[in-house]
Formats: sequence, structure tokens, C-alpha cells
Amino acid sequence: MNKVPFKGVIAYPVTPFDDNENVDIPLFKKQVERLVTTGSHGIAPLGSTGVMPYLNDEEKEAITEATMQQVAGRVPTLVGVSNLTTEKTVYHAKFAERAGATAVMIIPMSYWKLTDDEIVKHYDTVASKISIPIMAYNNPATGGVDMSPALLKRLLEIPNVTMVKESSGDVQRMHYLRKELGEDVAFFNGSNPLALSAFSAGAKGWCTASPNLIPELNIALYDAIQANDLEKAQSIFYKQFDLLKFIVAKGLPRSIKAGLDLLGVGGGGFKSPLKPLSGNEIAELDNILSAIESEVVV
Amino acid sequence: MNKVPFKGVIAYPVTPFDDNENVDIPLFKKQVERLVTTGSHGIAPLGSTGVMPYLNDEEKEAITEATMQQVAGRVPTLVGVSNLTTEKTVYHAKFAERAGATAVMIIPMSYWKLTDDEIVKHYDTVASKISIPIMAYNNPATGGVDMSPALLKRLLEIPNVTMVKESSGDVQRMHYLRKELGEDVAFFNGSNPLALSAFSAGAKGWCTASPNLIPELNIALYDAIQANDLEKAQSIFYKQFDLLKFIVAKGLPRSIKAGLDLLGVGGGGFKSPLKPLSGNEIAELDNILSAIESEVVV
Amino acid sequence: MNKVPFKGVIAYPVTPFDDNENVDIPLFKKQVERLVTTGSHGIAPLGSTGVMPYLNDEEKEAITEATMQQVAGRVPTLVGVSNLTTEKTVYHAKFAERAGATAVMIIPMSYWKLTDDEIVKHYDTVASKISIPIMAYNNPATGGVDMSPALLKRLLEIPNVTMVKESSGDVQRMHYLRKELGEDVAFFNGSNPLALSAFSAGAKGWCTASPNLIPELNIALYDAIQANDLEKAQSIFYKQFDLLKFIVAKGLPRSIKAGLDLLGVGGGGFKSPLKPLSGNEIAELDNILSAIESEVVV
Amino acid sequence: MNKVPFKGVIAYPVTPFDDNENVDIPLFKKQVERLVTTGSHGIAPLGSTGVMPYLNDEEKEAITEATMQQVAGRVPTLVGVSNLTTEKTVYHAKFAERAGATAVMIIPMSYWKLTDDEIVKHYDTVASKISIPIMAYNNPATGGVDMSPALLKRLLEIPNVTMVKESSGDVQRMHYLRKELGEDVAFFNGSNPLALSAFSAGAKGWCTASPNLIPELNIALYDAIQANDLEKAQSIFYKQFDLLKFIVAKGLPRSIKAGLDLLGVGGGGFKSPLKPLSGNEIAELDNILSAIESEVVV
Repeated sequence: MNKVPFKGVIAYPVTPFDDNENVDIPLFKKQVERLVTTGSHGIAPLGSTGVMPYLNDEEKEAITEATMQQVAGRVPTLVGVSNLTTEKTVYHAKFAERAGATAVMIIPMSYWKLTDDEIVKHYDTVASKISIPIMAYNNPATGGVDMSPALLKRLLEIPNVTMVKESSGDVQRMHYLRKELGEDVAFFNGSNPLALSAFSAGAKGWCTASPNLIPELNIALYDAIQANDLEKAQSIFYKQFDLLKFIVAKGLPRSIKAGLDLLGVGGGGFKSPLKPLSGNEIAELDNILSAIESEVVV
Repeated sequence: MNKVPFKGVIAYPVTPFDDNENVDIPLFKKQVERLVTTGSHGIAPLGSTGVMPYLNDEEKEAITEATMQQVAGRVPTLVGVSNLTTEKTVYHAKFAERAGATAVMIIPMSYWKLTDDEIVKHYDTVASKISIPIMAYNNPATGGVDMSPALLKRLLEIPNVTMVKESSGDVQRMHYLRKELGEDVAFFNGSNPLALSAFSAGAKGWCTASPNLIPELNIALYDAIQANDLEKAQSIFYKQFDLLKFIVAKGLPRSIKAGLDLLGVGGGGFKSPLKPLSGNEIAELDNILSAIESEVVV
Repeated sequence: MNKVPFKGVIAYPVTPFDDNENVDIPLFKKQVERLVTTGSHGIAPLGSTGVMPYLNDEEKEAITEATMQQVAGRVPTLVGVSNLTTEKTVYHAKFAERAGATAVMIIPMSYWKLTDDEIVKHYDTVASKISIPIMAYNNPATGGVDMSPALLKRLLEIPNVTMVKESSGDVQRMHYLRKELGEDVAFFNGSNPLALSAFSAGAKGWCTASPNLIPELNIALYDAIQANDLEKAQSIFYKQFDLLKFIVAKGLPRSIKAGLDLLGVGGGGFKSPLKPLSGNEIAELDNILSAIESEVVV
Repeated sequence: MNKVPFKGVIAYPVTPFDDNENVDIPLFKKQVERLVTTGSHGIAPLGSTGVMPYLNDEEKEAITEATMQQVAGRVPTLVGVSNLTTEKTVYHAKFAERAGATAVMIIPMSYWKLTDDEIVKHYDTVASKISIPIMAYNNPATGGVDMSPALLKRLLEIPNVTMVKESSGDVQRMHYLRKELGEDVAFFNGSNPLALSAFSAGAKGWCTASPNLIPELNIALYDAIQANDLEKAQSIFYKQFDLLKFIVAKGLPRSIKAGLDLLGVGGGGFKSPLKPLSGNEIAELDNILSAIESEVVV
């Protein structure tokens, strides 16, 4: 087992639906192919961007299998398998492993706020049922619980919990993580507007939906960091900052799908109650994308 | 259709599980029977207390049917049918209606924050598929979205959305509701520690899990309000305040099940990752219940 | 010493300034006279409404003396003497006592967040230098520190700290206070929109600037509570709710002065950087006051 | 007028008091001398660290004059002159200019939350009365108002408001600032734990009390950034991170004075109600300082 099979830019595809609100697998595969060929270092289906919580089991399994077929081992894959119950989390984690996922991502979903012991037991149970690595994901805004660095440290003692994704939106948390967990901890940033700060703080990678729209800029930021060239990284970051702000403010599925439509790739439809961006919002996104394009070409 | 079939104390049963984490229907029926015979004015299965989001379709349907069988029309029933997708919300709402529910409760669950238009469309779609009344439920902490009084006003224009349950925990919100929606709006309080304030503000009822443990005090509070006797209401409220604080602080499913165990009724087990209260917490609850009992007897 | 010399409606005057930004003592006395003759049960100069923190020592002393002269013992007086340093708090408390104040109000101002021990020492030092009672005031929004019920309990052990004013805006805090401190604690509500809830919870009085504008309604609310008539209290409360919301949302000094202008009393000017309400805001206030007047007459 | 006379590390001295709670000017001068000789690029008396709001006029003036005498032009000086009223802010700004300050720092203190127009008028009035540059300071936690990038843009249109210090603790705000105000805006970071992120985002300088304790590390961080060496900057930042966390968590005046005592320089006493750190806290600080020393030596 490669305990930390990811680095760099880990791209999150959307889940496109057709007019009957069924998953559109051919379009999904086309979107995934673009992510791979434009250089993303990993592919992560069934994240928040992929509206995983809105999908039923069959839809999740179809997306998982389509990802494996399309990626075909060219880059590692990270499949979201989180669920409110431990039983269903185990179920989806085992499915992902059988399907060929490189690793799984788990956020402790919390309708009723979980205690630290409940969270540890949850991860431990799932981890004991699979052999591939687990990335523990902290995102208080969507998961409903904020895992402290001390709790994450306990989770990392479970043998195949080997990575942390931090999306609390607070860069100080990344500093705490590195101080608490040691320089070698593999922590990944999940907050788009913090991309520069997180890399500066030592993040090994960036989990992001933005490669659907601006893969060159995303990867160039990582390359500049790898080259220890802060000035260049800063300049590249500010070129993409307006887009990163926009997609977070408007919601990732809505804004990425609108952007894919604008780029001519096709974003696909939504599952109710989620609806597309408004016309004004789409026009705003178009302006941001056009400004980036003209700047990058120059 | 009785547009507002509820008033007074609407009791929320837990969902008990056996050692294999299967729903324990006989114990559930016993718990429901107790709620009815101790005087609650309505029964609301599949709420947060009933860990609805953790249940699969079969479990939800079994709980719904068991409630109808046990209540047998003695008091009105309010069945929780919320789901992230509109499709599944319709599915469960139709099931509840067929099973004989008096009304359904719907909170706009929000993994991705919904816009006002998305929320209105969601309720409108569900409402058009059933004939029984809908209680719109606002609880930012668990639903992830805070519905403004202005949005609730829009929802109440849908013919069978006739009631509002407010659990934001801010009594000023209830004042706004009544000012914005008019004196005749049927608003119900879902925040236990605000029971006295909400009744003082004009709430028609109190949605609460506490009748599992202290039905006499809950109903006596409502009776004092009905008698326009504020001094008595205040005195009765403070008798139960410590318990109301405790069950909210520790989580309703955990604390109600522990209390039912202490009372000899039996609370039943949990579905992972949720676990019981710790020994210390159970002892604290025992003290609170004993203090209430001695005070009430005197 | 009457340890708890207040009950009912404690009215907060503004501090009017002339065109040169000097305190306008004749207008201040006229405003105070109106508060007394319209029935307020106490007068509290140098509160937040009176922009105490913006005044220099001479201005504070002039306001204190003018209050004593005008009130002339007809109702008890409560003078604000808070300051960032203990030394200056002692200075102003001693001045208030010499001038004839019935009691002083002290909030632990906190530029640097104070520890509980620092707060206790602060109150203890001031209390030891005067003989009149002290009302401890909790208002995290303006004071910068939130005093827990446990800390307030410690403060109440100091012999002449005998009253608590709670303005955290959370009615549950009042429930905690009464549970923690006992039924006999003299707690006063400082949050206008919580007036009904706070009285329902057992508050002995209401510290408010609204008697500058609607004294009859404020006092009628208290009278209904005293008569144990919740229905009437509710009805009277909702008549004044829009005004209470407005003055809190727009800032007490600005909105009370604008209201006094509208009522023909004269509110007086401001000390920079504070400025009057905008024209639109004044028109909104005029509408609210007119609606109240027509309703009350009928 | 040099519009932006600062860059790099701007050091904030404490204000030491003697046993009678009078300002200890000789100790203050000694502390300032150390800040200059250890390499800080600017000196900023009467900041939050210097407990400016707790000082009377004479104390503020004595500190201002002592700073000018001791610094003697070796580095630029930035004097805090903020006050709740415009009148007193003008008074202190004029004093600072006459005394020889290079620039003044102004935060819009807000007991009553100021409108944007009130804030602009406040800065405009002060700016018109002096000729030296003004640094506008945003710190919602201590100032009580959060100035948006749009408001800061308005302030920067006032000719001698030429610099912004941002202490909201949110690195995204710095990204917004730079996007909103342009690449050339002179923004300074006032949040110690964000030092690395802020420099990565393009901050021109770091306003900090930490050079009282670890000047070499603070300046080395800035030097690494200047050399475009992110790896080195990261390594140096993590060496000082525990100290930066500690001094923020415990309060700057308390922790810096305790550190100066531990280093043998002498921190001086406090003005009530502020008190020193507890023995346990001092021991914790000692451990952090010792760990840094051993690491730096190696």
C-alpha cells in the first residue's frame, strides 16, 4: 500500500444529470477525461462537488465505476464514501476498493454532533474493513463537526488513515496541524481561496473543483511552489483568485457546471432541489473566465 | 382538511434499536403508547429525536406504520419526511399520507445551501403531491439553512403549508414571525429551553421529546399558559428547566434513551456511529430526574 | 442601604449636544423631567444611550449633577460609572455617590479581555470605596466580555453588588441566572426586544431608552405582568415591538434623538464621529411612531 | 512626505508601569532601545500592546516623547492616536506630529457601531489637521467595527491615508484587499499567527509585539521572503509559531511583559484591572522560549 498516493492538484468532477434527473455517465466520462489530460495529479469523484449526499446507491456505484474505467490508472483516484451511518460507510468503502479506487475520503457526517470517541470508532470500523488508505476530511461547514488537531492525531494512529484534508477555511488550523502532527503529516487543502496560504504552510496538495475550468493556472501554482518561487506563485494565485472566490461563493456544483457550459464542454443538469445559476450569475462568471483567458494568453 | 390539527404538547418518540442495530418495533410501540396515555396532544415520529436521517426507507416506513397502529387516531400524528432530494421527500410524504398521518413535517435539508427559490419550489412540488397539511420546519443548526420570516411567508402561501415550527433558538425570531405573518399564524416552538418564552410570545404548541421523561410538567406548563396564569407557568417551567437544558446539551436521542432506561421503560439501543451517554452523564441525568420527582410529589 | 432600590421601568436618557458639540444641560433636564413625569420607575444617566464612553470627566459630572437636581428624589437614580481602568471607575463611582446617586451601574469594559479574577478584583476595589449598591452589567457586545452566571454569582458575594443587568440578548441566559443565583436574585433586562420574555422569565425590571418615546406602552407592559395577565402583556408588547426593533437596529442614541425631534421634545445634537439618522431612517421611525399612536388611541 | 515610510518588521513596545501604576519611562526607553538595536524596521508605541486605551493624556504624551527621544530618527515611528471621539483623535494626532512621529495609526473605535460615512468623515477630519501619513487599522475584535475592502478603498482616497493594517485574522481579507485596492497598496499584517500567509499574500510589513522576545526570528522571516525563499521562510515561521500562538492567546501586554522578565530585560508592571500572567502560564512561556533558543542555536 502506498500510504500517501497523492500530491499536487486533486481534481473534483461534478455529477451531471440529464433532463430526467438521471446521472449522465457519458458526459461524466468526458469531463473526467478532460481533467486527466489537462494534467491534474489525481481524480476525486463523489465529493461535495459531485453532490454525493444527493445520490442513491446505484448512482454512487455507477459514478465510481465510470471513474475507474475512464481514468484507467493514469493517475490515482480518491472516492468519497461518507455516510451518516457506519454501516453504509463500510458498504461504500468496500465497493470503492473492489472497483479499484486508490484511496477513499471520509468526512464524519454529523446530524447529531458526534463525540470524539464516536468519530474514532467510526473511522476504525471502516478502516478495518478495507486495505486502501483513507483520507480523513475536516469540513465543519458541510460535515457539521469540527475535528480538532488532537482528534486528527488520534485518527492518524489507525494504520490506513494516512492523510488529512482540511477545509475549515482557517489557515491557522493548518499551522496547528503541522505543529501537532509533525512535519511529515500529509495534509491537503480543501479551501480554494486559501490555496496560496496552504501551500506556503506546507500542504502536500490541493483538493479542488477548479481544474474543471482553469487547469493550467491550478497546476502552474503548484509548480511554482515546487520550484520554491514564491513571487511567481503569488502572481499566478492572484490571476485565479476571482474565480476561486466565485465558485466558492456561488456553490461548486452550480458554478462549475455553468463554467463547463461556457467553455463548451457541457456541465449537465441538476437534481432537485438544486437549480442552475441565474443568468446574471452566469454572466458574471463569463466575465471572470474571459478576464483570465486574456491575461493568461498575454 | 383541518389546516392546523395541532396545539399544545407535540411529543417526539425516539427510534429504539436492538443489539443488531435493527429497529425494535415492539419497544417503539410501547414508548408511543406511554406518550399518548400520559396526555401528549400529538405524536411526531421520525424527527431529529427519532434519528430519521440515519434510517433507510424500510426503517422509516416501519416506524410510520407502527405509529399509526399504536396511536389509532387518539391524537393527531405528524410524520417527518424530509430528505435532501425533492424526489425522496415526495416519496416519503406520499407514504405517510397513505399510512394515515395527520400531517407531515418538512425541513429543507441543505448540504449545498439552497436559495429561497429552490426552497419554495421544493415545498411546492411536495405539497402538490399530497393533500394533508405540511409543517415547515426551520432549524439552521440541523438543516443547514436559516429560513427568514419573509421566506416562511412565501411558503405559507402554498395552500397546504399551514404551520411553522421554529427552532433557531432565538425568541426574537418568534416575535418577527408573528409580526410578519400575522397574529393568526400557527407557529410552534421546537427549542426546549425557550418553552416559556415561546408560549409567552404566542406559540400554539411545543414540539418536544421531553414528554418521554416528564409529561406531567410539560402539559402543566401548557395548561397554565391556557389559563393565562404566568406566575404558575413560570414556576412550572423552572421545575423542568434543568432537564430541558440537559437533553439539549447532550443530544436528544442519547439523553431521552438514557432517561427511559432510568425510568424503567427502556430506551433501546443505537445505530452506529451514535453511542449511549457515558456513565457520568447518566448519573447527572438521574440526579436531575430525582430532583424533579421529589419536587413534584411535594 | 436599600439593596435593591429598583423595579419596573428604568429609563435611560440620551446626552444632547449643542452645535459646538458641548453638552446641552437645559435640554437634558427637560428630557429627564419628561421621563419622570410620564411614570418611569427609575432614571439611569450615563448609559450606552447616554454615550457615556464618549464624554470627558467634566461632561460626565455635569450630567450626573443635572440628573440629581432634576429628579430631586422623586424616583431612584442609577448612574453609569464604568471605565477601562479601575482607578477611573473608582473616581466616577465616588463622584456619583457624593452627588446623591441611589446606585451605580458598572460594566467591566474590556479592551484586553479580562480574566474572571481581574473582573472580581475590579468590582471588589470599586465596591470597597462606596456605600451605595452596584448593578453589575453584562453586555458582551459593548463591554467585550461575557460574564458567565458563575462569575456573576461571585460578584454578588461582594456586599454592595446586589443587582445584575443582563443584555446578552439571549433569554436562556436569564433562565440560567435565575437557576444559578436563586429565585430572589434581582436581575434586570437590558435587551429591548426581549422585554416580554425577560419579564416572563422573572426579571425585576427593564432597563430601556424607549420611555423617551413610548412611556405609556412600556409601563403598561410592566403593569400587565404585575397583574399576572399574560394575554394583555403579550398584546401590549406586540404594539411596541416594531419600535423596540428599530431603536436597537439603528442605535439607541441616534434613534431616540430622532424620535424626540419627531415628538417635538427635541433630541439634541451629536458628538463626532456619531451623526444623526438619515432622512429615510427618520421617515421609517415616523411611520412606526404614527402607527403606534393611532393604535393606542383606538 | 514619504507616503509609505514602513516595510518589514514594525515592533510594538509595551507600556511598563511601576508599583504605583505610574508609567515607568526609564524602563520603557530601555525596551525601545532593544527593539531598535536588534533590527526592527520601525517602532510603534501606543498600540494595543502598549495598552493605549488605558492611558490618560499625560501618559500618552510622555510615551510619545520618550519614543522620539530614544529612537532618535534611527528608524521610522508610528504612533497610535485612536480615540472614540474625533476631537480627541485630532488632539493626539497633532501632538504626535509635533513630537516628530513619522506617521500615525488610527483605528475607528466603535462603542456605537459607526456607519461607513461616519468613519470616512472621522478619518477625513483628522487627516486634514496633520501632514504626516496615516495608517488605517482594521481590527474588528478590538475596534468593534469591521472595515470592508470597499470602505478601506474610500479611506485611501484621502491624500495622507496611505497605508492599511489588517488584523481581522482572515488571510482571505488580504487577498480581497490586494484585488480591490491594486497590487501597489501598502498593506501590513497585524495578525501574528498569519505572518507567513500574509507575507505570501504580498504584505509589505508585519506589525508585531514579538520582536520584544524573538527579534532574530521575526527579521529572518522577512529576509527569507525578500529573498523569495519560501522553504526557508516556512521553516523559520514554524520555529516561532508556538510563541506567536501563545502571545495572542494570552494577551500581548501580559505575555510580552512576562517574556521580558524571563529574558532579564524587565517587563514592568500593569495598570488595574489588568494583572500579570499566572505562574503556570509563565512556566509555559518559559518552555516555549527555551525550545526556540535551543533550536536557533543549533
